Amino acid sequence: MGRIITISRQFSSGGREVGRLLAELLGYSYYDKELIKAVSEKTGFVAEYIDKYSEVTTPSSFPYTIGRAFGTYKKSPLDDLQAAQSEVLKDIVEVKGSVVVGRSADYILRDKDPFKVFIYSSNMDARIDRCYDTVPEDKEKSRNAIESEINKIDKQREKYYRFCTGQKWGETENYNLCIDTYEVDVVTAANIIALAVGIGE
Amino acid sequence: MGRIITISRQFSSGGREVGRLLAELLGYSYYDKELIKAVSEKTGFVAEYIDKYSEVTTPSSFPYTIGRAFGTYKKSPLDDLQAAQSEVLKDIVEVKGSVVVGRSADYILRDKDPFKVFIYSSNMDARIDRCYDTVPEDKEKSRNAIESEINKIDKQREKYYRFCTGQKWGETENYNLCIDTYEVDVVTAANIIALAVGIGE
Repeated sequence: MGRIITISRQFSSGGREVGRLLAELLGYSYYDKELIKAVSEKTGFVAEYIDKYSEVTTPSSFPYTIGRAFGTYKKSPLDDLQAAQSEVLKDIVEVKGSVVVGRSADYILRDKDPFKVFIYSSNMDARIDRCYDTVPEDKEKSRNAIESEINKIDKQREKYYRFCTGQKWGETENYNLCIDTYEVDVVTAANIIALAVGIGE
Repeated sequence: MGRIITISRQFSSGGREVGRLLAELLGYSYYDKELIKAVSEKTGFVAEYIDKYSEVTTPSSFPYTIGRAFGTYKKSPLDDLQAAQSEVLKDIVEVKGSVVVGRSADYILRDKDPFKVFIYSSNMDARIDRCYDTVPEDKEKSRNAIESEINKIDKQREKYYRFCTGQKWGETENYNLCIDTYEVDVVTAANIIALAVGIGE
């Protein structure tokens, strides 16, 4: 059975791209948007809503009345969404290996001995440039506005990770490999992870 | 001109070995014991003393009366030792590249755009085993005693790094690549670093 590789990532660090390239390189399954789809099927939440709220921890800012595709729940929608997400993650048992991006998968799947990667970027300008390159609507925004959004999303991810795991997001000891995409391009990063898990050249 | 690669490392994580292997692989100069020798020549401190105290920050525990090879100083010996060490580090300008292990070189040499690596191990048992394998006198000690020593030396390195740099030792954002030698063997770690700096396969 192939191994599970989890990729935690700073926003706009290229982590999602590294994960996708790695899955292609190794012939592994890739869980990111696919995971969102599976959670949507399990919960009835629409995919866009899951994408936006599946790594956020603040129920008070949670506009659940507009997020429902169908069905009725008694519990907090945030509880439902995140519990379903954990269940979907735990169901990932593949004959071939898997790459899972985000969603505290490194911790949720800890009994499956995942190889845990953290992707970050030591340069904020590079992260802002990446937003301009990859998100069409960001072309209208100032660099300061994008920097604020990047910091806000990272804070949400940090808070969500601490909420799920009790651990500090991005702290070396929680991962097996941490790669700075300002110094290492995403293709090389994918090759490095493959080498680290013993499958690369 | 080749690049400078700095290797910060947890005690008994195999960082020194990774550095040595990497320098061999790339045909780079290697600074670790060699650095100690150069500092000894510059300061008059004996090499064993420099090895023991060059990454320690506590002047009150500094037995300088027994550490002198020759010469007389007015300033604190710790100041002399560490200032000399910084000077020696800054003099490292090589036609071919260099690998420098420890001594906050990532920060001291920051104007030379080093590629900064942190080597750690997520498993204490593996670190204790490594001590038994590499340090002959450790064979007489209990696992608990070795674990205490490992934690003590890491604390000293953390304190020294903070003292020199104002930064937190082992925090991802201070490095370009962080590798867990519990999951990645030292030979693979050296190959990964070579790949990351664009020289490997």
